[in-house]
Amino acid sequence: MKLSLNQATVKRASVPEVVDVCVRNGIPAVGLWRDPVAEYGLERTAALVASAGLEVSSLCRGGFFTGVDQRLDDNRRAIDETAALGGQCLVLVPGGVPDRDLVAARWRVASALEVLAPYAASAGVRLALEPMHPMFCADRGVVSTLGQALELAAPYPAEVVGVVVDALHVWWDPALAADVRRAGPRIHSYQVCDWVTPLPADVLLGRGLPGDGHIDLVGLTSLVAATGYDGYVEVEVFNEEVWARPFDSVAADLVRRHATGWEPVVDGGHDRLPVTP
Amino acid sequence: MKLSLNQATVKRASVPEVVDVCVRNGIPAVGLWRDPVAEYGLERTAALVASAGLEVSSLCRGGFFTGVDQRLDDNRRAIDETAALGGQCLVLVPGGVPDRDLVAARWRVASALEVLAPYAASAGVRLALEPMHPMFCADRGVVSTLGQALELAAPYPAEVVGVVVDALHVWWDPALAADVRRAGPRIHSYQVCDWVTPLPADVLLGRGLPGDGHIDLVGLTSLVAATGYDGYVEVEVFNEEVWARPFDSVAADLVRRHATGWEPVVDGGHDRLPVTP
Repeated sequence: MKLSLNQATVKRASVPEVVDVCVRNGIPAVGLWRDPVAEYGLERTAALVASAGLEVSSLCRGGFFTGVDQRLDDNRRAIDETAALGGQCLVLVPGGVPDRDLVAARWRVASALEVLAPYAASAGVRLALEPMHPMFCADRGVVSTLGQALELAAPYPAEVVGVVVDALHVWWDPALAADVRRAGPRIHSYQVCDWVTPLPADVLLGRGLPGDGHIDLVGLTSLVAATGYDGYVEVEVFNEEVWARPFDSVAADLVRRHATGWEPVVDGGHDRLPVTP
Repeated sequence: MKLSLNQATVKRASVPEVVDVCVRNGIPAVGLWRDPVAEYGLERTAALVASAGLEVSSLCRGGFFTGVDQRLDDNRRAIDETAALGGQCLVLVPGGVPDRDLVAARWRVASALEVLAPYAASAGVRLALEPMHPMFCADRGVVSTLGQALELAAPYPAEVVGVVVDALHVWWDPALAADVRRAGPRIHSYQVCDWVTPLPADVLLGRGLPGDGHIDLVGLTSLVAATGYDGYVEVEVFNEEVWARPFDSVAADLVRRHATGWEPVVDGGHDRLPVTP
């Protein structure tokens, strides 16, 4: 599975910087974020990645459907931007629980897809709904399992509405293997990072480089590959320490880990977690 | 549903102090922890709660089955202690993932139950396996959903191996309503606290008093009651601010919230979470 670098992994890199980093390190694809793309310019970004020979494995992100404003206009713009970039999918973050009504919040995700799926189909853009770790259910993502994301996607053709399989969000799920198999062609994006302990104060930044934590990424990658997934494995890490490193150091590290089955290069192999008594 | 005060909610209270707090505030049951019980003495604790007319809704805790040492001897002692206290159940925390093999860790929970269930049956003690929020999967609890806990309990009689339904751990689960119904007589303990945002630096302490967060506790309590559950609703909150308050203030607050359907007494009603854009 070929490697892609999500721009958030080198958060301080501008669009031309992340493109250069990919090219210099032989990474054939990039996952882009809307804000830095807007800053550099949508058309300029499209031209730059094309001339660099990079694929855009994903655009992050649309979604946030659960508030009073379902943000449908903004999501239509995100679909247009994905089309302009030739992106392989638009990642959709569901949104949190604005009050205590989790069931209603989940219905709002379903109703937003009803509106956006036809729009995306016309634009030739694949929507990738992201099930999010239950830790984010209250404030970010009410779609909590891959199975639930697949049920929300089910009314639509697989090439229009699919899912993101992000290792951090789904690794704990007892139904994971069965649901990855069931997802089949609906896997529009496969993202990796690692679950590290202890979590930092801001859990949103609690992501390690693949190989630094507790997730069996080799096993999960095999499961995803067995579905016939022919996209990229995109590394998306939100981590202050990683952000503080030079971009090329991060990219070279990821290329090396990717080649060795996500083994971090440290003496003594992986850190093992002691079981808390 | 009658109220019980888990000792951890007033963490700095000794056994006689928590017993006094319950009696003074008209709380008819207490959830005890093994360390303070050992400190005060097992037989003295049993005599004290009996003479105070309190029930022991749970003893926390056994489990931690996933390490090299499955801690079976310690768990047998915990079963004996539960019997000595007349506790309604022994809470079992599954344990985390000592390496990257989550499937093996889950098997170790199953194999520990095979040994402990007959021992508990002989002692007349109910084991209550606690599914834990997936946020704790790596370092504390590999049983991540109520459905998974029920599958682990299924080989045994309901009065021997059941589950804890702790609102914090299960509130996000899309299968929750169905699984609570399915649990029926296997619900040996019902615990409440609330999910607050943002989470504090130590997520283990990220629990609010019931009514202060995002969980629909009224809805969940109805679901649990509809199974015929006739035990207590036990408040278990790990929270530094709550621990800093006088014990009686916490207890009186809980009695009031319990009586009003977990409404916190603040002007303007509940805080509502803005959906993060």
